Amino acid sequence: MNSWLNAQDAMGKQFCHTGFPNGKHSVKAYVLLYYSVFSQARFTNFATQTERMKNIRITSGFSRLDKNQKINLVSSNVANPELFGNTLLGTLHRDPLAQKLYDEFSENTIGNYYFPYGVAPNFLINGKMYMVPMVIEESSVVAAASGAAKFWAERGGFHSEVISRHKIGQVHFTWNGGIALLKSIFPEIRRQMHFNTERITANMVKRGGGILAIELVDMTDKIPDYYQVKATFDTRDSMGANFINSCLEEFADTLRDFAAVNTELNRYSLQIIMSILSNYTPDCLVRTWVEGEIKEGAHSYDDHYTDTEFVSRFRTGVRIAQVDTYRATTHNKGIYNGIDAVVLATGNDFRAIEACGHAYASRNGQYSSLSEVEISDHTFRFILEVPMSLGTVGGLTHLHPLAKLSLQLLGDPDATELMMIASAAGLANNYSAVKSLVTKGIQKGHMKMHLLNILNVYLATDDEKKLAIDYFKHEKVSHSSVNSFLESIRI
Amino acid sequence: MNSWLNAQDAMGKQFCHTGFPNGKHSVKAYVLLYYSVFSQARFTNFATQTERMKNIRITSGFSRLDKNQKINLVSSNVANPELFGNTLLGTLHRDPLAQKLYDEFSENTIGNYYFPYGVAPNFLINGKMYMVPMVIEESSVVAAASGAAKFWAERGGFHSEVISRHKIGQVHFTWNGGIALLKSIFPEIRRQMHFNTERITANMVKRGGGILAIELVDMTDKIPDYYQVKATFDTRDSMGANFINSCLEEFADTLRDFAAVNTELNRYSLQIIMSILSNYTPDCLVRTWVEGEIKEGAHSYDDHYTDTEFVSRFRTGVRIAQVDTYRATTHNKGIYNGIDAVVLATGNDFRAIEACGHAYASRNGQYSSLSEVEISDHTFRFILEVPMSLGTVGGLTHLHPLAKLSLQLLGDPDATELMMIASAAGLANNYSAVKSLVTKGIQKGHMKMHLLNILNVYLATDDEKKLAIDYFKHEKVSHSSVNSFLESIRI
Repeated sequence: MNSWLNAQDAMGKQFCHTGFPNGKHSVKAYVLLYYSVFSQARFTNFATQTERMKNIRITSGFSRLDKNQKINLVSSNVANPELFGNTLLGTLHRDPLAQKLYDEFSENTIGNYYFPYGVAPNFLINGKMYMVPMVIEESSVVAAASGAAKFWAERGGFHSEVISRHKIGQVHFTWNGGIALLKSIFPEIRRQMHFNTERITANMVKRGGGILAIELVDMTDKIPDYYQVKATFDTRDSMGANFINSCLEEFADTLRDFAAVNTELNRYSLQIIMSILSNYTPDCLVRTWVEGEIKEGAHSYDDHYTDTEFVSRFRTGVRIAQVDTYRATTHNKGIYNGIDAVVLATGNDFRAIEACGHAYASRNGQYSSLSEVEISDHTFRFILEVPMSLGTVGGLTHLHPLAKLSLQLLGDPDATELMMIASAAGLANNYSAVKSLVTKGIQKGHMKMHLLNILNVYLATDDEKKLAIDYFKHEKVSHSSVNSFLESIRI
Repeated sequence: MNSWLNAQDAMGKQFCHTGFPNGKHSVKAYVLLYYSVFSQARFTNFATQTERMKNIRITSGFSRLDKNQKINLVSSNVANPELFGNTLLGTLHRDPLAQKLYDEFSENTIGNYYFPYGVAPNFLINGKMYMVPMVIEESSVVAAASGAAKFWAERGGFHSEVISRHKIGQVHFTWNGGIALLKSIFPEIRRQMHFNTERITANMVKRGGGILAIELVDMTDKIPDYYQVKATFDTRDSMGANFINSCLEEFADTLRDFAAVNTELNRYSLQIIMSILSNYTPDCLVRTWVEGEIKEGAHSYDDHYTDTEFVSRFRTGVRIAQVDTYRATTHNKGIYNGIDAVVLATGNDFRAIEACGHAYASRNGQYSSLSEVEISDHTFRFILEVPMSLGTVGGLTHLHPLAKLSLQLLGDPDATELMMIASAAGLANNYSAVKSLVTKGIQKGHMKMHLLNILNVYLATDDEKKLAIDYFKHEKVSHSSVNSFLESIRI
């Protein structure tokens, strides 16, 4: 049932015995499907190729099917195609025009994958109060962020500064004429690069950004004949990938053309390997912190520890993440629970943000914590310094309807402000996680949060849920204990 | 409009002038809202506290509001509360019971954030054909995965092996009695740890997993008096976070109790700092590769390059990512485009997968490429070795309706098989990205894919889209060029 092997046969079968009961999917789609499968019509072509492995069929033309056809075809691979198809159709936006927008974000789309859209109130950052939108599927992340935000809002809130926001792009090339010659001519090439990109950069320059620097980097100690054109950009409130890549491809063309016509250079071989922005932006950096006086009663989370003891345990918890990669990875993962939730909610690209931050965490040769604790003059300070290239214009930021709402809810921040907000969410989650870990432990609280999910697995009714929540106030939560409890009350 | 400052006032106002036109939201909700806001009733308490910063009001009781109340309150912070609220309500699943499930995944949920759910056909892995579900908001990722999958399916497909799948958890503690004494008694403590966790591990042992090792680690060269209990687990087809954390908290209790009663140990001070699984799992490792003979016409992507030239450029492209962190970050980001899309589609935790993979990428002291190229005997081999702790049971894997569909579509794989599939998606995206970069460049193709998004920004009609797609077959795509084009045809 699991493979694509018998797709055509299964689809034929499905054509005979299934249909979508809500009546929205017309006969037309089935006719088209029939047409495409059985007639090998031009509409689509399920070419079957004999491969070196027997029975392997390559699918062709899938991307050109319409959505209903795709759903039918995909459904034909599972045990209950009808349920499968209806589950997918159930996720679609009730407004077909709104749905079309989501479909076009990506390719071969057959449904919407829902992530809970939540809000964490009480984020006080540099004296301004925010209600922070968070998109996250993991239980307890929004609760932890809200808890820490409220705690610190009562103590001056988050302080944040964007240290710099430069972005990097590179043209990678090989050159067998040596560095001296290249270096001597590079100023002229650079002028040409600036000139040739003027039409690309005009708008960005108007907005106060553009190309900040173009330098030649000798990488021949790493790979023979390998050099870079490394450029620095200010892309203002856009993440800037398209802008940077367009500039870089122009730089590459300029370099190639220059080397071809220049009589000194064209005696040697220059090859452009590739041109691409870097997601590593250590100079697109935000520093966010909370601070408070260490005095008895100031933190008071737990009857077990005095304030001084708590702060000391907290500091040790963070120091461990600075010296041990196993701990650092999980520690930073918790930071990204908060950051990514904001990144997702605002239509930014979390893979870029993650890759950048984790590469930064290893900048000193050992993968280490992104946050640190400073204690001086009876003051506790908890600091997160993290690079992130975010946008508040371009990309999906104003295209995804809920990303747009998120930015509205945040008061239409610029990219700098959004860096502060996302990092504050990261610090808030980090604070909550370390706090729980060094006091009561993370498992009890987490399993309480997870209780509802477990209850849903065992199809608990609302009444059963109420009883369970009450019962598990004083009992350990686990799949088996929840199952036992439900069995006991269901008798 | 952007801050939480005037939430109460705005909400009062909103109560007077807005309503949801679809009539689904009854008077009852408004009465409750009125009741809670104006009567300071026990239902919720919007306590206003005078903070050190003037006009900052802390919100209390937000989490206890029902969803409509939350939406009303959140909406009151934006310019057009009605549109804001309706956009959120429009994202809800039409079946309230289905919606309730999504709401309970997280906290303070007020809507669903849609991600396109797509499929990439033709993933041939170890001779078995898969149609791979992918959840991704970035255009061209699914297309790139599909393209590479089909290309390689015609050449033997992906080969994959799970090298190991051990997971790590740690109890971090301080101890001032020296390593010798601790080491001498540790075997006894370890026996006690195994004994005390038997009731937790019973089910996992039945499934063939459990605790594989418990060792004492001396970390005093990093932090004075700091040690770890480092345990290795096999959690079978679950990601295993709850299982591991439950075991660890039991280990910690055991260690604490042992140290308290043992007459040799209790002369010194032992403090448990924290107990937590590690998301760094270098021994939960999968190796996936594609390979093919290098001969003219075997790759033939581009009229520009011969097969030998292409392979050589491809290898240089990957080598650059091995020696340069700026390039490595982006290179690996592209790998995670594919991996995360599968991780998301199957209800796994992408923050954990990202943190682990990127920490692994820095294991040799410099953040570097996760993939590599081997060329021998006229054979090109492209290899991805990446650690990832995935689950196919537990967590959201069978709770999120579309995660469940994804696993069905993949033929209900076990965790090992899912590691192979996710890594194949990562390798497929990496292959497509490097291929594009070292041949025609990434920007042209990407902007073509992005064209529809840009057209949507400028509210292009279907007819305008058709004209634009035609026109931009031979023109550079950018926001300004699309805008100019639309203006020219709209006259």
